[in-house]
Amino acid sequence: MKLTGLHYIAGQPSASGSRTFTATDPATATALPTAFHEATDQEVDAAVQAAAAAEYHRATAAQRAALLDTIATQLLDLGETLVERCRAETGLPAGRIQGERGRTVNQLRLFSAVLREGSWVDARIDRADPDREPTPQPDIRSMLQPLGPVGVFGAGNFPLAFSVAGGDTASALAGGCPVIVKGHPSHPGTSELVGRAIVAAVAACGLPAGTFSLLQGQGHEVGQALVRHPLLAAVGFTGSYRGGKALFDAANQRPRPIPVYAEMGSTNPVFILPEALRERGAAIAEGLTQSVTLGVGQFCTNPGLVFLAPEAAAAGTFRDAVARQFAAVEADTMLNDGIAVAYAAGVERLQSELTLLAKGRERDTGYAGTAYVFHAPARRFLENERLEEEVFGPATITLTAETREELLDGARRLGGHLTATVFGTEADLRDHADLLAILAQKAGRVIVNNFPTGVEVGHAMVHGGPFPATTDSRSTSVGTRAIARFARPVCYQNFPDWLLPAALQEANPLGIRRLVDGTWTG
Amino acid sequence: MKLTGLHYIAGQPSASGSRTFTATDPATATALPTAFHEATDQEVDAAVQAAAAAEYHRATAAQRAALLDTIATQLLDLGETLVERCRAETGLPAGRIQGERGRTVNQLRLFSAVLREGSWVDARIDRADPDREPTPQPDIRSMLQPLGPVGVFGAGNFPLAFSVAGGDTASALAGGCPVIVKGHPSHPGTSELVGRAIVAAVAACGLPAGTFSLLQGQGHEVGQALVRHPLLAAVGFTGSYRGGKALFDAANQRPRPIPVYAEMGSTNPVFILPEALRERGAAIAEGLTQSVTLGVGQFCTNPGLVFLAPEAAAAGTFRDAVARQFAAVEADTMLNDGIAVAYAAGVERLQSELTLLAKGRERDTGYAGTAYVFHAPARRFLENERLEEEVFGPATITLTAETREELLDGARRLGGHLTATVFGTEADLRDHADLLAILAQKAGRVIVNNFPTGVEVGHAMVHGGPFPATTDSRSTSVGTRAIARFARPVCYQNFPDWLLPAALQEANPLGIRRLVDGTWTG
Repeated sequence: MKLTGLHYIAGQPSASGSRTFTATDPATATALPTAFHEATDQEVDAAVQAAAAAEYHRATAAQRAALLDTIATQLLDLGETLVERCRAETGLPAGRIQGERGRTVNQLRLFSAVLREGSWVDARIDRADPDREPTPQPDIRSMLQPLGPVGVFGAGNFPLAFSVAGGDTASALAGGCPVIVKGHPSHPGTSELVGRAIVAAVAACGLPAGTFSLLQGQGHEVGQALVRHPLLAAVGFTGSYRGGKALFDAANQRPRPIPVYAEMGSTNPVFILPEALRERGAAIAEGLTQSVTLGVGQFCTNPGLVFLAPEAAAAGTFRDAVARQFAAVEADTMLNDGIAVAYAAGVERLQSELTLLAKGRERDTGYAGTAYVFHAPARRFLENERLEEEVFGPATITLTAETREELLDGARRLGGHLTATVFGTEADLRDHADLLAILAQKAGRVIVNNFPTGVEVGHAMVHGGPFPATTDSRSTSVGTRAIARFARPVCYQNFPDWLLPAALQEANPLGIRRLVDGTWTG
Repeated sequence: MKLTGLHYIAGQPSASGSRTFTATDPATATALPTAFHEATDQEVDAAVQAAAAAEYHRATAAQRAALLDTIATQLLDLGETLVERCRAETGLPAGRIQGERGRTVNQLRLFSAVLREGSWVDARIDRADPDREPTPQPDIRSMLQPLGPVGVFGAGNFPLAFSVAGGDTASALAGGCPVIVKGHPSHPGTSELVGRAIVAAVAACGLPAGTFSLLQGQGHEVGQALVRHPLLAAVGFTGSYRGGKALFDAANQRPRPIPVYAEMGSTNPVFILPEALRERGAAIAEGLTQSVTLGVGQFCTNPGLVFLAPEAAAAGTFRDAVARQFAAVEADTMLNDGIAVAYAAGVERLQSELTLLAKGRERDTGYAGTAYVFHAPARRFLENERLEEEVFGPATITLTAETREELLDGARRLGGHLTATVFGTEADLRDHADLLAILAQKAGRVIVNNFPTGVEVGHAMVHGGPFPATTDSRSTSVGTRAIARFARPVCYQNFPDWLLPAALQEANPLGIRRLVDGTWTG
């Protein structure tokens, strides 16, 4: 399949503007073939208008499920073409891309299964009571319904799982919302391949072409025009704080504000409690190094702050072990120039403020990122709020507490994070219930004796958390709970049965679980 | 019980400022006894600090349920003192206040029942699979947890059900969030009585005093200080567009933005379809008049726009019937000076733009509101967006369509509303599936052959809707679905069973319904 460099608006290729950009292979810092067009305001408008007119919200759950399944198949059918282009654009190894493709396909299929089961719509029925005094009680029924056209911003660090056919697209399409994707400029070829797979799936399923559009663009203009479009109903984003916050602000300043689910990363604090530090510091040091440096540290969930319990000797041994591990880490290719430059600047800032414990091996080709581990007394964290800012890449900071209270103060001082992790023995955990209670208020996911990298796609996962980890802690961008993020409850009062959505009809033709007169049934 | 005019901050009376204000009896336009203090910034800070420190989030569901039940009992125990003061401050008849008290008590008890049942926390368990390839699957569990201190703004038009112990307070306390209420300045005595009842209930239940505080204030300063407080986590509001939007903007401009659930009213369009208009126009005219003028039109759900199907003769007869009905409506006391003045100005604006069909009887005492019904061709609505702005009071506009398409265009042109209503025979409804589909995208509640005033407190109710009806269509301010509005999902990975919240423990000690490995159980 040859790349065109075009947008795909309601099924049709488009390129009304003259500005173009190319992708770069980060391993060699050389441009890749195909010039991609920068979408114009007219193209943004055409895509959102087509979405709003598409009436995709009238598709049945079975039709939406079929669409997700077909997208999954189309993705797999791209085969090595997709893997090769994605590898060239991101510098990620083929194995990682294949794994991410599997995760993306599984996610689509899991959402499809949730749709086919059907109960996620939270159907509720309060039946009429004509005899109620002083006034009869009318029949009231409600369920979740789609918000409308959703703008999805592809992430740079997950070119498949959080991009064109990623979590937000799956959630929106599952929930009955048409999707306009703004592809990430660092992997436009990958975006085009996946976008065309979705276009093909929409057509194969006989759904309105406006159900999906892909727009490409390098600057902020396309995204801003998308978020400001009067007919857009919601936004999904995964990326930097700066990018996510700008979209959030733009969305709130619209004449009609719309919800923005921006996942903006975090530093994912880790706490190592005394007994665990003494008993298995070496093993934790090894796991920590892997968690920090996996994929050149380019995960939203990699740990950037490691609090060590007040155990001077064990903390010293732990730091030595971490230093040895980090020193052996090979530099590897980062996703793009921008990320590599920002990482270098972040490391430079940390280096000016903290003690360098160790750095990994360097490399001279392409946008290589070297691993770093720094150290400071925990009280430095209490004084310097910039230490909580994410440095996106394979760097972390160990912070040694002098007292138990300092450990707790560190936790209290934290802002919102995607994850917070505690390593401890049973005795440690029993001694630190207060710490765990604080962390549960700070993060979307609290972890005991596991590392935070690796986000399971399941029913119970929460990939989210309080601001600034996300702009909306009430949702998750991974897992089936996300299916409700682009939906709102709609209530139907005194409707004749035949006029109700199937999910609310008296005979329960979909066979779903419903709350009927206060009791869950089915 | 004698009124003090003080704030109640974490159980303690407070009055550190010197500015005071009084309430006014709207029936006589005379001041009522008791000077109420205007809260200072220090008092706002003390209330939020106390809430954040209260650790109310650690109270069990049973403890929270007991609190709600105790508040209900304490409210009833206020007896005639409450009814009398509330009547004096609002001009509402005693029967209405007693009814609203019943509704408030029922709401608290319904939420208590939902807490005791327990399944609302959406507990989800994905069990570990140590044999999964390529990596073992960790144990992942999640459930809803409280957001933190909630600021609740009492509404002027529901001095009990949407005020100090109203829906938002019930939702927040049920969900484990401490509450700081900013009482509505038009009924401060009512607020104080109810606030002290809650203070007594918190104490009686042995919960931390910081769980609840009541602040009073006449201007915008107290509310703005509350919304801007760094430790506040969310806001609930019922009132005007201007007030709600100002809080929404302030909350989004904070360094850490927080969610705002502002219910800002709407014009609640009604569509009367051809056969219904011909066959039972007179009955609908009578019901419409009651729905518009009930409680001097001071409901968020009273219908301000009535679209008539293109049936010239029947529409004329209908307008005549409505005019006759409205002409017989007695003027009655509005809630306060501000509302009466705004209503008069709104009516003046309508009068300058539309044809007056009829006005009700006038009255000269206090802040009386007179009923008005206006008329225009439906196309005027398509040209003049101000006709969609709420005129809070007993006024409505009939809009006669000349074609079926004009009726649909009217629906398409609508912004977000709390409700949208259709009157039609079965044949009408079958002919207007397109209209109903449009309306379901515009409103939180769609109604067939019922009037929108009267919001049932149940499990299926949705009192919300797209902007500008609310700032967040993903929730409801009435009904048990609201219990989740101040909560977010928190995920626990690889926790030992004993360290998990009870709702997530393997043995399911609370006996709640949970999603276990993808299947709903219990």
